[in-house]
Amino acid sequence: MAHCLDDDKDCMTNVSAPVSDTLAAELGAIVGSEHVLADDNGRALHSRTTEPDSRRCNAVVFPGSAQEVAAILRLASRRKFTVWPFSTGNNWGYGTKNAIEPGAVILVLSRMNRILEVNEELGYAVIEPGVTQQQLYEHLLAKHPGLIADCTDSTPLGSVLGNAIERGYGYTPYGDHFGHLCGLEVVTPTGEMLRTGGAGEGCPTWNTHKWGYGPAIEGLFSQGNFGVVVKGGIWLHPRPERMLLFTIDANGPDELGATMDALRVLALEGTVRSHVHTANAFQTLSLVQKYPADLLARGTRIPTERLDALKAQFGIPDWTAVGGLYGSAAQVRAAKRELVHALRGKGRVAFFDKAKVEQSKRLVELWQRSAGRGMGAMVAQTIKSMVTRKDFALVALLPEMYGVLLGRPTWSVLESAYFKSRAQPAAPPLDPARDGCGLMWLATAVPMTGTQARTVLALAEPLFTTFDFNMSACLTMMNERTLFFLLGIFFDAENESERERAAGLYRALHATFTEHGYQQYRGGIPEWTAAGTHATPGGRLLGQIKQALDPCAVLAPGRYRI
Amino acid sequence: MAHCLDDDKDCMTNVSAPVSDTLAAELGAIVGSEHVLADDNGRALHSRTTEPDSRRCNAVVFPGSAQEVAAILRLASRRKFTVWPFSTGNNWGYGTKNAIEPGAVILVLSRMNRILEVNEELGYAVIEPGVTQQQLYEHLLAKHPGLIADCTDSTPLGSVLGNAIERGYGYTPYGDHFGHLCGLEVVTPTGEMLRTGGAGEGCPTWNTHKWGYGPAIEGLFSQGNFGVVVKGGIWLHPRPERMLLFTIDANGPDELGATMDALRVLALEGTVRSHVHTANAFQTLSLVQKYPADLLARGTRIPTERLDALKAQFGIPDWTAVGGLYGSAAQVRAAKRELVHALRGKGRVAFFDKAKVEQSKRLVELWQRSAGRGMGAMVAQTIKSMVTRKDFALVALLPEMYGVLLGRPTWSVLESAYFKSRAQPAAPPLDPARDGCGLMWLATAVPMTGTQARTVLALAEPLFTTFDFNMSACLTMMNERTLFFLLGIFFDAENESERERAAGLYRALHATFTEHGYQQYRGGIPEWTAAGTHATPGGRLLGQIKQALDPCAVLAPGRYRI
Repeated sequence: MAHCLDDDKDCMTNVSAPVSDTLAAELGAIVGSEHVLADDNGRALHSRTTEPDSRRCNAVVFPGSAQEVAAILRLASRRKFTVWPFSTGNNWGYGTKNAIEPGAVILVLSRMNRILEVNEELGYAVIEPGVTQQQLYEHLLAKHPGLIADCTDSTPLGSVLGNAIERGYGYTPYGDHFGHLCGLEVVTPTGEMLRTGGAGEGCPTWNTHKWGYGPAIEGLFSQGNFGVVVKGGIWLHPRPERMLLFTIDANGPDELGATMDALRVLALEGTVRSHVHTANAFQTLSLVQKYPADLLARGTRIPTERLDALKAQFGIPDWTAVGGLYGSAAQVRAAKRELVHALRGKGRVAFFDKAKVEQSKRLVELWQRSAGRGMGAMVAQTIKSMVTRKDFALVALLPEMYGVLLGRPTWSVLESAYFKSRAQPAAPPLDPARDGCGLMWLATAVPMTGTQARTVLALAEPLFTTFDFNMSACLTMMNERTLFFLLGIFFDAENESERERAAGLYRALHATFTEHGYQQYRGGIPEWTAAGTHATPGGRLLGQIKQALDPCAVLAPGRYRI
Repeated sequence: MAHCLDDDKDCMTNVSAPVSDTLAAELGAIVGSEHVLADDNGRALHSRTTEPDSRRCNAVVFPGSAQEVAAILRLASRRKFTVWPFSTGNNWGYGTKNAIEPGAVILVLSRMNRILEVNEELGYAVIEPGVTQQQLYEHLLAKHPGLIADCTDSTPLGSVLGNAIERGYGYTPYGDHFGHLCGLEVVTPTGEMLRTGGAGEGCPTWNTHKWGYGPAIEGLFSQGNFGVVVKGGIWLHPRPERMLLFTIDANGPDELGATMDALRVLALEGTVRSHVHTANAFQTLSLVQKYPADLLARGTRIPTERLDALKAQFGIPDWTAVGGLYGSAAQVRAAKRELVHALRGKGRVAFFDKAKVEQSKRLVELWQRSAGRGMGAMVAQTIKSMVTRKDFALVALLPEMYGVLLGRPTWSVLESAYFKSRAQPAAPPLDPARDGCGLMWLATAVPMTGTQARTVLALAEPLFTTFDFNMSACLTMMNERTLFFLLGIFFDAENESERERAAGLYRALHATFTEHGYQQYRGGIPEWTAAGTHATPGGRLLGQIKQALDPCAVLAPGRYRI
């Protein structure tokens, strides 16, 4: 077993001054000097976050290959600096692409963006970490239209592998991204290459058999710091013969609870295979308009009456669930019948097939062309009112969500990150960290029952009020038995006291959930540095493994508290 | 990090003499002397295998709690003996309950057999490793009839957790047993307790959210030697409104290939959620009659013409696939239509619902009562011939397989382990190791395509012939993209040269598949000790983890080559 030799004087861990010229030259010798950013400007730009605070990195390096990643890690052991890898670095709300401590070398793997293989017969792709959701979507549409890749509703420029390693979720039956990874190539902290699955080169099941041979180690490289994933297999779903988008409107905690119970049963039975997302009214509002300017200036939350008026104006219910039914025409018909039956008296279900989505798209176009005035607007309004009480701004989201349910990324949901920004969202590509948006996510894992959904709501909502924020909440199905309760804290990043309140609210929420025994589904810098989590015996094991694999602690020390 | 201190003189590793009285007393002090077997008889009985050779253990210990397991492991570190844990020890064909080296202390966890919790709402049970398939089945039927647990078609007295940790497979939508484990409690080799999932005590998602928080480590405790699982959550499926058993008969490699391709597409689309098993004629034959006595005496394989005659006599096709469709009446109808359409011209599909299975059961009873003679027999024959050309012995299996597809264990398939035994199977509980049966399994992971199925068949079949055996084969769906190609080597354990030929065939098959890049889905002593597998970079990592967690190498050293 390797040991860290402490005889090097050029140690720069935790130093926020820029890297020495020598080190910059050494990094440049590995990746090419044009792929190292070590000047003040570059460091500042790449250290920006959407969270209330940030840590200045020492350099940003863009390696072009696994060999370069390995060489950087070996250099890190010799020169004693910490390396924090990011696939594309769009981890907004969870620490963006900061290290926990200032002074780290940030790796951004965006140059490693090859789609190495698509296997149509077996339904998988092998890709590098820089491959984005949009890139994979376009590649499949052009070359392999019979397959779809799940995507998140975050940026189209997000990394497919990065999100999967961090265990992100989408909407389709393959929405559990880590669950549909199969076969990883990893650079270890000491700069060696390995493959998960216990298979040698050329093993034909490397990307089809997730568990492999011997202990299944793929999970070690998710949500942690045991290696840098430089290649991975990701399963692709056949494009379904039919997909029917459904929404469920629920009002009040009882309808929400009943909806969660019904959806759990439908998922357990296999009727609903989609990862249903259920957003509260405030989150939905953030998708369709900006935060009221007067309240933003005053740094206060939207009062209940005014929020109610906005809900009424846009036709937003307390909760909106979005999911899809997949299969042949007959299978989707049968599933639809089950869904309608199960939700009777619990929530109002609406279905949108391809034709209906196309119609609504045309209607929104007509409305937009008319600028809300004259004959065009009247016609559009009249037709829409026959279908829904919801505003055009909501109807306009339908085609986007329909696309996401078939793996087409969208910018529409990310716009909500600009909700409390004083600037309007620029044209895509959006980048909330670049644009100074204030946003944090707290994502708690919750058993999927109505009782539990009501319990966590009751824990969170008063804290939002105490800290003078509105609660943005979404309940997302991770699997048939578990939700994550995603709380968004939108804040005005230019208002210092609001930034502090946001950080305080985060800590209060985290402490409350921890105290009640809940675990976070996913962490980030605010989470890893929050107090109050006890060391678990499992944590001790992770420490032993870390010590064995990364004796110099160069790779993202402290990530997930390891 | 702990280190192994090599200063103890009472080292007994690799010693096949019985344990010293001192050590037996120390083990007895932990578990109670009545739960330690260290006499010659007990050691011999518990060292029996179905494989061609066996390793005499030094003692068999039956701990009653996790604390006792931990105490035994700590004793092992002090006294330098190796410990090989088995849940119930019915791992026939893969090494039974032998250690790789003689002289080990065998742990059998059968006394730890509590069903600690069944959560009806969330569909899971928390159980100890001694809980058997039959026990869980009966418990659910009596107390929670709305839930079913998947079972294998092996012994009803097999351990639910043991099979899941070893990554066994059943037939229902939850047939991937490891995939449906959630939340393990583990005793580490140094005798500490940990929980997977990164959760503390009382975390409400411990048994619902498989990935947990931080690196997902559950996989480390499957197919390995990093800890002894003493408790685990296992997901339960809601009892479906409808279940329709289907069989597909295919003849020749082309029909088999086309069937595999069709089933893969149906599985990828979500139509077939069952883990279909496709057995060849020889394996099916082993289910319905004994090996011909004259050939058994001569120690030769069944010649092609005679096998063809037996196939014709029983109405056995080259390949028989068995699976189920699950859902509401409408969903099952829709799935049935898809299946029929997809298999057209590729294999002959037959469906059996509950009513049809009940009828066939009554028909078989009528036949059996008539002893194949007289009016009863004629009536039974006439009715049967209207439905199927298959023999009553095969029809008699239908209700058993229907039961397995709803989680009811059966002894019927295990009877085939007695195929080449000179003794008739005794009344249940069957125990092929106790009864001197000869049987080895080799299970290769294969991408689920028709081409691949034909390829591995063509690799295996000539080797069986060379070694004068008939090929027993089954292609089992592990997931939508992968089969395991299960080869059974049945041999007459009383015939020494046949035992040697069986071992030789195993090595030849293993070498051939390894040479062609395939990996085994599962190992066992014959597999771990087979030559020709290269060390992989992933294997180096496992060695580092082993060294960190088990510095004295007391827990099953060499298991899965770690």
